[in-house]
Amino acid sequence: MRNLDENTITDEAIRRLEGCKDARFKEILTSLTRHLHEFAREVKLTEAEWMQGLEYLTAVGKKCDDKRQEFILLSDTLGLSMLVVALNNAKPPGCTEATVFGPFHTDKASDFRNGDDLAQGASGEPAFVRGTVRGLDGKPVPGAVIDVWQADGDGIYDVQYTDKDGALFARGRLRSEADGRYWFRSILPEFYSIPTDGPVGDWIARAGRHPFRPAHLHFMIQAPGYERLITHVFRGDDKYLDSDAVFGVRSSLVSDWVRHEPGTAPDGTRMDKPYYTLDFDFVLAPAGK
Amino acid sequence: MRNLDENTITDEAIRRLEGCKDARFKEILTSLTRHLHEFAREVKLTEAEWMQGLEYLTAVGKKCDDKRQEFILLSDTLGLSMLVVALNNAKPPGCTEATVFGPFHTDKASDFRNGDDLAQGASGEPAFVRGTVRGLDGKPVPGAVIDVWQADGDGIYDVQYTDKDGALFARGRLRSEADGRYWFRSILPEFYSIPTDGPVGDWIARAGRHPFRPAHLHFMIQAPGYERLITHVFRGDDKYLDSDAVFGVRSSLVSDWVRHEPGTAPDGTRMDKPYYTLDFDFVLAPAGK
Repeated sequence: MRNLDENTITDEAIRRLEGCKDARFKEILTSLTRHLHEFAREVKLTEAEWMQGLEYLTAVGKKCDDKRQEFILLSDTLGLSMLVVALNNAKPPGCTEATVFGPFHTDKASDFRNGDDLAQGASGEPAFVRGTVRGLDGKPVPGAVIDVWQADGDGIYDVQYTDKDGALFARGRLRSEADGRYWFRSILPEFYSIPTDGPVGDWIARAGRHPFRPAHLHFMIQAPGYERLITHVFRGDDKYLDSDAVFGVRSSLVSDWVRHEPGTAPDGTRMDKPYYTLDFDFVLAPAGK
Repeated sequence: MRNLDENTITDEAIRRLEGCKDARFKEILTSLTRHLHEFAREVKLTEAEWMQGLEYLTAVGKKCDDKRQEFILLSDTLGLSMLVVALNNAKPPGCTEATVFGPFHTDKASDFRNGDDLAQGASGEPAFVRGTVRGLDGKPVPGAVIDVWQADGDGIYDVQYTDKDGALFARGRLRSEADGRYWFRSILPEFYSIPTDGPVGDWIARAGRHPFRPAHLHFMIQAPGYERLITHVFRGDDKYLDSDAVFGVRSSLVSDWVRHEPGTAPDGTRMDKPYYTLDFDFVLAPAGK
């Protein structure tokens, strides 16, 4: 086909996929092409804007490395990540809801035992977290692998520091006990800003949006026979619960982190300064639903 | 807003732009968000596919450097580039049509005089190109800056070579004479493959598409009082005219490159092997239309 105009080019670009043997890939590319073209027509994208857009995407790619995934952050701030989470995590009533994965998980986290202090020296108010992992039938799930990660008291994740030789802190991997229980010490999460020193920071500033996420603790819980759960537990007193920069808040995931005066912590530790406790139970969906 | 689902999140993501003071940016982001979300819903994008997509875009960004713009190539192969060209280059009848810019232009090209050989040693059949630059009123345009660039006889652009110390060839910048005429020697363009050693090559292979572009010579022509023209001149005998990998062919830009037996070339050179000639006149649109 020659002489394609701004309308006829869409059908031709889609027709060119006719030799594609991967039906799902073809379906995705067909929809992507149609929406990408429709977007450009709808806003009457200029050549200068088109070039700016491509340069922007290039800069996002360049910002990515093994500790920073700026495209995930872009997806998060556009609401795409949470949309995909919602599309794929319609769990039966009673199950713990899912939310965004975020860009700060790492497989390199260490294994801990229940009761250990995951803070590993991270700044922040001491906090004791405990609960049970259960199935929808109420039965405890033993041996569930529980990945925990969070920002420190300054709102910064270990992997964001460039001056700490790559040390990991305020994260770790536990397993639930035979009765489904898990417990650990860490720090109270604080609200924080998503990284604004890259292209994503530029776009949300230009859009007049704030970059803050309400305080939360990340969990990823996996056990045979159950759907993997990726979620957060938020703090009920956070001012950003209704304007999370990545749209991830679920009411069912907002919980009380109870403040205690100095005294004896749940694990028997004598605390000479105030500390917090969180009780949160997880309910996993059965696999294969 | 909390508890956003895969449908309600779109309006909320758009509502968050309410503080944006740049009306055009807001308009673009609103449409982009709506179409991006609609795409994900329409294909029911899985979390694994979402991650693959982000990793793909990251790889595209990583492939870009000062001589390779993989995002332009991605846009070209999706038909977006030609769509944007068509949207922005509705010229008055009689003007030379525009087509895609492509990723291989460089501002570092040297200045030449009419009659010079731009090939500068590039492989390929010798060709002599000539014509006149005029306005829509038929009047010659003197002093128009004419940027010319093309792949060599092996279908490879100078900037693609990694073993030639960055030498430029088969490209250069001329100016039209007082009577609007331009002429130069170069090489006959050949069909070629877009670069397939990167993520763009991966997607078109998976889509079952070929990577070829019909043979062409690139022109960018600029003169005060006229719209900048970015275009190609194609060869009429090319088998890929109807399936250009970047959708750029216009019938009005397809021309005869006439083959001649050895003899005296248009510039008086004694040619002891066959050579080609192309006559092509350009008509520029008035600026500010």
